[in-house]
This record gives sequence, structure tokens and C-alpha cells, in this order.
Amino acid sequence: MATGGLSIFGDHSDVMAVRQTGFAMLASSNVQEAQDMACIAHAATLETRLPFLHFFDGFRSSHEINQLEIVNDALLKEMLDPKALAAFYQRALNPEHPVIRGTAQNPDVYFQTRESVNSHYLAAPDLVQRVMDRFASLSGRSYHLVDYYGHPHATEIIVVMGSAAETVIETCKKLNESGRRTGVLVLHLYRPFPVHAIVQALPLSVEKIAVLDRTKEPGSTGEPLFQDIVTALATGTPSIGGIHPRIIGGRYGIGSKEFTPAMAKAVFDELQRPEPRNSFTVGIQDDVTRMSLDVDETFQLQDEGTINALFYGLGSDGTVGANKNTIKIIGTETGQFVQGYFVYDSKKSGAVTVSHLRFGPKAIRAPYLIPCGSAQFVACHQWEMLEKNEVLEQAAPGAICLINSPYPPERFWDHLSRESQKAIVDRQLRIHLIDAYAVARECGMGGRINTVMQTCFFAISGVLPREEAIAQIKKAIEKTYARKGRAVVQKNFEAVDRTLEHLHSLPLFEKVEASYSRTQMIPPEAETFVHQVTGIMMAGKGDQLPVSLLPNDGTWPLNTSRWEKRNLAVELPLWDPSLCIQCNKCALVCPHACLRAKFYPESELAQAPEGFKSAPFRSREHPAHHYTLQLAPEDCTGCGLCIQVCPAKDKKQSQA
Amino acid sequence: MATGGLSIFGDHSDVMAVRQTGFAMLASSNVQEAQDMACIAHAATLETRLPFLHFFDGFRSSHEINQLEIVNDALLKEMLDPKALAAFYQRALNPEHPVIRGTAQNPDVYFQTRESVNSHYLAAPDLVQRVMDRFASLSGRSYHLVDYYGHPHATEIIVVMGSAAETVIETCKKLNESGRRTGVLVLHLYRPFPVHAIVQALPLSVEKIAVLDRTKEPGSTGEPLFQDIVTALATGTPSIGGIHPRIIGGRYGIGSKEFTPAMAKAVFDELQRPEPRNSFTVGIQDDVTRMSLDVDETFQLQDEGTINALFYGLGSDGTVGANKNTIKIIGTETGQFVQGYFVYDSKKSGAVTVSHLRFGPKAIRAPYLIPCGSAQFVACHQWEMLEKNEVLEQAAPGAICLINSPYPPERFWDHLSRESQKAIVDRQLRIHLIDAYAVARECGMGGRINTVMQTCFFAISGVLPREEAIAQIKKAIEKTYARKGRAVVQKNFEAVDRTLEHLHSLPLFEKVEASYSRTQMIPPEAETFVHQVTGIMMAGKGDQLPVSLLPNDGTWPLNTSRWEKRNLAVELPLWDPSLCIQCNKCALVCPHACLRAKFYPESELAQAPEGFKSAPFRSREHPAHHYTLQLAPEDCTGCGLCIQVCPAKDKKQSQA
Repeated sequence: MATGGLSIFGDHSDVMAVRQTGFAMLASSNVQEAQDMACIAHAATLETRLPFLHFFDGFRSSHEINQLEIVNDALLKEMLDPKALAAFYQRALNPEHPVIRGTAQNPDVYFQTRESVNSHYLAAPDLVQRVMDRFASLSGRSYHLVDYYGHPHATEIIVVMGSAAETVIETCKKLNESGRRTGVLVLHLYRPFPVHAIVQALPLSVEKIAVLDRTKEPGSTGEPLFQDIVTALATGTPSIGGIHPRIIGGRYGIGSKEFTPAMAKAVFDELQRPEPRNSFTVGIQDDVTRMSLDVDETFQLQDEGTINALFYGLGSDGTVGANKNTIKIIGTETGQFVQGYFVYDSKKSGAVTVSHLRFGPKAIRAPYLIPCGSAQFVACHQWEMLEKNEVLEQAAPGAICLINSPYPPERFWDHLSRESQKAIVDRQLRIHLIDAYAVARECGMGGRINTVMQTCFFAISGVLPREEAIAQIKKAIEKTYARKGRAVVQKNFEAVDRTLEHLHSLPLFEKVEASYSRTQMIPPEAETFVHQVTGIMMAGKGDQLPVSLLPNDGTWPLNTSRWEKRNLAVELPLWDPSLCIQCNKCALVCPHACLRAKFYPESELAQAPEGFKSAPFRSREHPAHHYTLQLAPEDCTGCGLCIQVCPAKDKKQSQA
Repeated sequence: MATGGLSIFGDHSDVMAVRQTGFAMLASSNVQEAQDMACIAHAATLETRLPFLHFFDGFRSSHEINQLEIVNDALLKEMLDPKALAAFYQRALNPEHPVIRGTAQNPDVYFQTRESVNSHYLAAPDLVQRVMDRFASLSGRSYHLVDYYGHPHATEIIVVMGSAAETVIETCKKLNESGRRTGVLVLHLYRPFPVHAIVQALPLSVEKIAVLDRTKEPGSTGEPLFQDIVTALATGTPSIGGIHPRIIGGRYGIGSKEFTPAMAKAVFDELQRPEPRNSFTVGIQDDVTRMSLDVDETFQLQDEGTINALFYGLGSDGTVGANKNTIKIIGTETGQFVQGYFVYDSKKSGAVTVSHLRFGPKAIRAPYLIPCGSAQFVACHQWEMLEKNEVLEQAAPGAICLINSPYPPERFWDHLSRESQKAIVDRQLRIHLIDAYAVARECGMGGRINTVMQTCFFAISGVLPREEAIAQIKKAIEKTYARKGRAVVQKNFEAVDRTLEHLHSLPLFEKVEASYSRTQMIPPEAETFVHQVTGIMMAGKGDQLPVSLLPNDGTWPLNTSRWEKRNLAVELPLWDPSLCIQCNKCALVCPHACLRAKFYPESELAQAPEGFKSAPFRSREHPAHHYTLQLAPEDCTGCGLCIQVCPAKDKKQSQA
């Protein structure tokens, strides 16, 4: 899986790496299917006698929050054929009727045995379809081995599997509205590959096909799904009268790279060209081998009435949890459709989190992030982020913005850079301020600002009538904190009530007045690579880096983290030389190597800066030496492990 | 790798399972190439900067003995580009100029990084060809990414990789002699797949192509090489003017299944049909899904002057070693070409070994066993095998047969079954007898009969003049046994000289006279499965089993080994109840579970058969019980481990 670097993110490299095993494979495109296909896979494995691998896109489907209809136990029971289940148990290894499985075979019989499984594979597609049909009759949700969407006489067709299917389908609909004849073939059964069903599903009008693979196999003649479609049409075409559409293959979404309607349109547009390119990529800028398609980012799909809301928070500050709660309230109380997706980076606790929430009157089929400039609601839960990330720039014109500000309304404007002011003025953003930390402190909740921010969201977003929203928040508080005692519930209730008193709605700003720009994250003295690559990634704009700027053999320069000081710690450990026994356990335990212990000749102290702390070194072998334990405050995360591990005791404190 | 059963044998399932990794892959067809491509792979990896996987057929190429021209150190050094080598070292991880490799990447840059390797893959085929050209200029042996053999205007072409290539090439030559227009495309570079070279190599006359894969991927649209060729012609054809040959794919040689010229011809014949079948198999009889091609086994290729020699021996009886020696003598002393291949089954020591030797005036391109009925020399080193296996049936008409017989010439005929006599009479076999065990004993060599049998081979085969052959054998003895002392060498010399005195040439036999048939290996009371499957495999005829008779889910009946008693042990352990301390170590250590220890009430002995041994059970908790240690002589291999582990001492012996 790991290539130029390790990626824990989502694409089809892993499932494609096992496509030769003989497992049957089922693909799901969204959270509803992820549940339904799991049920179908279990029923189908009993009837086909093949092992099933059911997959859906990591992160994009596995971590998306969306509405779904639940498969209940009664339906599950109906789905499992009792005869097939009994036969399955009957085949299990059992001392009552022993058999041997897993023998060693010689050249005389191995090949014949290998071919003895053919009947199962030949029968499987029809059996799987029958299971799908049974599921449809029980649940009302109908699936096929292959589902075709789009124009009945489409000339350009995209073949795709997984979450991208929804994006392509929605794009196809939009394009067809403007007179194009496009279509989408979505595969559910990937193995055994349903050649017949595919050939049947394709309209005879098809002239060009683009097959999208979410994996890359360097040195191959093409990615797996592309090869499969080419082979299926080469061997299966006689039955559709020998049509020979032009087929191209392309790669998208590798390592969870975004796949947007604009990218789907770029693929449809490529198919319109007289000589569409094979082996293209979409979603990146390949300025080396020039395989990438140009994408018109202004093409966006936005259902009328759907609200896009973005929330910027810090890992572990409660923002994500509060948003999950918000989705639940909207989804269950308003009758609206909702979607939630949460972007964390792999630096975990202390890193930026961005919550992408959509809600509206129509089912939300948008398995991609909220595009820049299209959020009707933007919340920034941490003041520092405003100038470090392009937060306000995400907002749509006239959007509502909620900012947790340590500054009162009258001083807010003066603390913004020219860029932030410009974003507000240009977009005519409707700014709402709250000093959430002050409110939380007042209510005895320390630094827990999630209830405060959630209340603000409901107060100004208008998703629910204010009174109803407050009632719902309080209901949720009851539920969440009841077991922590009445006092905690009461504090949260108080926070809700006080929040509204402290929430300020500012008038529109007309003019940029700031004299200073945002501070550059990377100082001029940094290496070129840091300016060109690392710094861009730190600013959250790594998606824009072209192929040419990235190392092609996984080799990265060292020591670039010195330009990425996060200054996370709210509290820092303090070294007391008089108490320290110089055991160095703190330096050993620090997970970020922020503590360094050194000893040196006492004479060196002459050049030490003022306030430099030291203690005589506790070693008979090194008389006249001193010892210093130094902290790197910018790297410290404030985790407190050094304090936990320290064996020294302050006797004054322990007497007290 | 393991499917219906575990196979340690050779096919391409393993290399195909890693084709998606991005490794470059080079395939070799024979022992010469296995060496040459190894050299090319090492040179090419430096210049392409891709990791290389070089593969050749397990067993068939890895274990075949054949002549080859050696790549010497000077040539190796010439092959490695010093600049590329220096650059390789320069790129190594080094504390003098540290870098980091193997970072973790997020969705922002992973896809771009993944595509940054494209240039290396695009450049690789040309670079590999350049390395091959350099190798050709230094060694005189010329290779290409793809090599085409056969008719310049072929209409039917087979695409193949690995050892089967030689078989197909020789078959193609033969067919073209009779007016057919066939061709063979042999791939050396499998990854990066050389689309351009393949399209260039194919004659424009091609109408039909069969792609042979030595693997099976159930549920796929076709096996990997087939998919690659289909895709390559679908995406690469514009440059050869849009030819659309009909392409079919088939499987062969899985789990080291034989692949013969007759099978290659069956594929060429299938291509001649108006509607050749896709997804065929060849080499087995598939009577279930009827995918297998019919094979005319009478089609054989035999170079004039090439001698086929077969030797039946027992695992660890020295037959294989002596044959390797024989190949060396013929290969180095006669100027003839030689080939050796040795078939063992997985029962190892004590199982049948068959040595397949070919020698003749032309280079031997026959990567398959000597076909039944075509051996001009057959040796049977163990008398028991004559009636258990179809040994004499392997011989060609008029063949020379050498039999290690415990019976003198005048009684030999009377000890043969009707079947063996018929084989001799029908084929007019020229029988030579030796009592090799008697000669070996006389010369103080115990049971080591290899020198005796080898001497007989040279004496009667006429490969070398008798005197010269004897001199060569003695030279080989000197070399092999010198370090074991003069006495051993002398004993072997004596064996050589005495052998000729004891070797009897029998007159031709005219008439079958025996009254009895070969005893059936499987008694009538055995289960049907044992009669239909296990017994056929035991008789060495498992290749003939059709698909329908083999379990399709790896489930085999238990307890069938009771029909397969090998009676291997020349000496059996004897239990002495008076010495036994009843520790049971012997029963624990026996690798074949041939020793069972039981205790039982003394009263049970009343019903014991005569001679049944027992001893009072040494246990206070079970008074009046007896103990018996029982051996299963038919299963004992005579390995002696029970005797080694036994702690009991015979005091009479140790005093002596």
C-alpha cells in the first residue's frame, strides 16, 4: 500500500491488490449501500458458496454521517436462506463426520482441482442478483450488479465504483439538463465480473467510455477496472452486435484526494474530444508527464435549499462532537436531510479540524468537501485560526460567520489583517461575535466552549426557530451529561442561556482599513523546498502542489519541522533546579523530544544569557560541571507526561 | 497461493499476485536465460531506478539440468554502468547527507507523489532494451523485450511467457513445416508492459491470437497476460493500422501440470476454428464446465538423434545422484547436448523417483517430461517397481531396458506378470539384467547400487565407447570419493569391474506366458473414492483424472492412507518386553505414528493371538494390567528414531 509515502487514507489499492484471490467482491457507494450490501453479501455468500469481500470508500463513506434506513433483525433473518444456512453449518469441520481440508497436492491433480470451482463462479452473478431482488422486495431498496444512470441514448459514459459514483451521477444529470447525452455505469458486483450484465446495461448508442479507477498500478497496461471493461467488451461484445466504443481509463481520488463534480465534468468533457486521452489523471496538476485533465473549478452542483456549513476547530476542543450533536438534532427534529464529514490531519490532537455540514430539503448526494467559497455558514471556534488559515475565504457571498473572539465588537475589526478584512468586505459577510471562553469560564465550565458555540450556531443560522433550537440543545445536554450529575447539566443550561446575552451581531463592514498583512508562516531564511512545498502544505493548500514539486522517490529533506512550530501548550512544565534529582526520566518520556538534558563545565555559564537555569551536576566523575534541563516551548504540547514521571518531591508542598 | 490444496509446484500465480506493486518484471524461458536475465535485471535496475523481479518457472526451469554458457565476472562488471552504480550508492541512506524516506502522507500530496514516478516507467522499456543490447554485444546472446518466432506472415499466434515458450516455438516450427502459418510471441519484459514492442513485433497478417496464462484468477474477465494483450491491442492498435485480431485466453501448466507440444498444437488448432473458445484450459480434461481443449497425444516432437532415457529409483537410493553424474560425463566428454529433469513426489525419501535424461547432437529444447512410450532407454533400479508402476510401458519399440533383478536370467521371465511380459513382447524390448544388490554386497558397498547401475547404463547404452565410459566413471569415482579414503575408491573401482561380469543380455522374448496379472493396488473393499481417485493417484496416473472426480471445495475423505501401505522399511524395530521401561518415548518420537502403546486388564490376554507380546504394566494405580507396544510394519520407514531415543539398556550387550 505504501508507495512514495504511507497513506492511511482511502482508495481502491487495497481491494485491487486482492482481486486475484477468487473472493467475490461487492462495492458500495454510500452509507446506505454500505449497510445494505453488507446484508446482501452475507446472504449471497451462503448461496454462492464464494467468500465475499464487501468494500466502500475509506473515510469518504466510512466516516460520513448521513441518514439511512436501517436493516432490522427481522429483515436480516428473512434474507438468510435457512436451507443455505443449514448447508453451511453442515459443511463445517465437525468431529462427528470428519473430513480433511487443506491437503497438499502434486502436479497430477492440482490443475483439475483448480478448475473444479468454475461452476460456482459462473453461477454467482445470477445468484447475487436474486439475493438483491429478495432484498428489494423486503426493503424497497433495489440494487443490481450494475446500475445504469443517465441518458437512455447516451454517447459518453463513465464507469465507476465506490463513493465517486454519486458525484458522477449528479454531474451527469446536470450535464444532461443542458442537452448533453451522458451516462454512468455503476458497478456493485466487481468479482465475479458481470460481463453479461455490463453489456446489457450499456446503451447501444455509446461511442466513448471513460473508466475511472481509484488506484494506480505502475507499469500495467491500465488500471484494473479499465482492463476489466476493455476485456469484457472485447470478449462480450458479440451479444450487443459488435459495438466498439472507444475506451479510455483514468485515475482519481488516490489517497483520499477529493473528487468533485468539476472533475467528473472534466472527464465527460475529455470524452467529447475527437481523440480522448487514455491513462489520464484527474484531481491533480501533473506538470511532468502531463496526464492530468484540466478542471474548471467554477463548475459546482448546489441543490437549492441545501445549506453548507463549515466549522473550524482544534483537535479535542469539542467542535466535532458538538457538530455531530447538531446533525442529530437537525436530522431528527427538522425533517431535513443532513450530511456530516470531518477533516482531521494526521497530527491528531491539537491540529486543525474542519467540520463540513450540509442540510436541506433534498437527500444529500455530495461525497466531497464543501467547495471553497460556497459555505453559507462559517464558524471559527479558535481566534488564532483566522489569520493562519484561509477561514473567511471559504464563505459564500452574504454568508453568516460566527467567530469566537477574545475581543469585544468594537475592537474586533482592529485585530484583523488586511486579508481577513478584505474577505469580509468583498463577501459582505454577516459577522457574529462571541467570547466563548469568557462565557464558559463564567459558567464554571473551564475551557469547554462546545455548548456555547453550538447555541450560537442555532441562534443565528435559522435552521430551527430559536426557542425550539434551545429546547433541543437542552434536551441533548440532559441526555449527554445526566450521568455526570445535576450540577454539570445546570452549568450547561446556564451556558446556553448566557450565550445569547453575549452574542453580538455586527453590521456589514464596508472598507478594508488594516495596515498590516497576515504574517508569513515561513520566514524568508527557510530553504526553497520549505517555501515551495512544506509551507504550502502547512497552509492547508497542499492540494494545489503540482507533481513536479514532489519528490519522486519518497526522499524528503530532514529538519523541516523547525519551520512548523505549533505552540500548542496552554501550560508549560517549569524546571526547578533545586528539586531536580537529574534522573532524566522527563527527557526520556517526552513524546515530542521537547526536553533536553545536558551537562557542561561550570565555566561555560559565564556566557549564559540572563535567567539561564542550571544546577551543579550530580556526578563525582565530573566535578565542577553544571546541569541544565531545557524545554522547547514551541514544540511542547502540554501533555504533562514529564510531570507525571518526575520522581522528585517538593517537601514544602507534600507537608502542606 | 494455496487454493483447493497447497501446491509447492510451479506456475505464475505467485508473480501475478504482485504485478500491481510497480516492480519491473522479467521472465526467463530456460536455464540459459535464467542466468542471462538475472544479469540484465541487475544492470537494468540501476539504469531505470525501478526494482526488478526476475522470474522463471519453478521446477521446470529451476530444477532442469542443461548446458549453458556462463556469464563470467568480467562480463558482469562490463554490464554494470559505473555511473549508475555510483549514483545508486550516492542515493543510499547515509548519515553524512541525511534524508528521510518513508514518510506518512495526507490526501493533499499523496496522489501527486504517486504520479511523480511515471517518467521512470515510461522510460524503462527502452532502457531495458539498451541493457539487453549491451548484453548481446558482450555475450553474443541477443534478447528483446518481446521476441517473435515463426512465420513472417502468420495468421495464428500464441503469446506466452516462461518455459512453455520453448515448447510452443518448437511446435510452431513443426506446424509451419507442414504449411501452417503460425507464430509465437514470447515476452521477456512483463512490467512495464511493452505495448509498443508488442504491437511492433506482431505481423500485420495476424488474424487470431491465443494468450496462454500459467495462472487462474477466478471471477476475473480473463487471466493477467490475456487482459494485458487485449488492453495493449485496444489502446495500442492505432499504430499498426487498427488491426483487430480475435483474441482468446487460456490456462495451462497450473501447479506444474505438464505442457507438451501436443497441447501447444491443440491451442494452434483451436485458433483455426471459426469461433475459437475463450477461457479454455489445456492439459486436463474438464468434463464439468467443458473448457478444456482436446489434445492429440500422438503428436510428439522428437529431434533425430536425441536419446530419451528414463530411470526409476527410490528416493535416497542414489539413482538421481548417479544420473546427474552421468549427465556431466556425457555433456563434458562426448560433445553432446544433454538435459536432465528429476520427478520426485512430495512423499520424499522412500518414494518413487523418475529421472528424465535426454542427450543428442542438437540443443535440447524440450521443457517437458519424456512422453510415455518414447524412451529408448529405460532402467528400473528397484525390482518391486516393475509391477507397481507402468515402467516398461514407458519404453519405445526396440528400447534397451536395464533391470536390477534379484533373479538370475533363467528365472527372470517367470517372475513377471502378464502385463509386464506383454510390454516386453509387444515392444520387443532388449532386456539387460543385473543383480546390483549382490554386486554391491560382494564389493563391500552394502546397499549402495548407484555405481553398479551407472556402469551398466554406459555398458549397454552405447553413448560412449565402453572403455572410455569406464575410464570416465572411474575418474568421477576418484573425484567423488577421494576424501573418503583410498579404500572406498577401490571398492567402487571393483564394483565397476565386477559389474560387467554380472550383466546379462537376454534374447528377445516372443510370447506372453505368465498366468497371473499385476495385483490390484486397491482391494475391492475400499471406498469408491479410493478406487476412482486415490488409487489412480497412487498408480501415478493422477494426470488422467477428470475435473468431475476431484472435490471442488478442498474437502477430501479421511483415512485413505490405509490403502497406501508402502512397506518401505528394510529393517524393523523389535520390542523386547523384558527390557522396556514403558516410557513411551518411542511412540512419541515416531514421525509416522507406527508405534502405539496400550495397557489393558491382564484378563484380555486370554483372547490374544499366539506370539502376542506383553509385559506387566508398570503402574501401582493399575495392578493386574498388562502393557503392549505394537508396531505397524507396513507404515514403518525404518528410520530408526525409536531406537535412538530408547533409554533402556541391554546389560548383557553393554557388558560385552
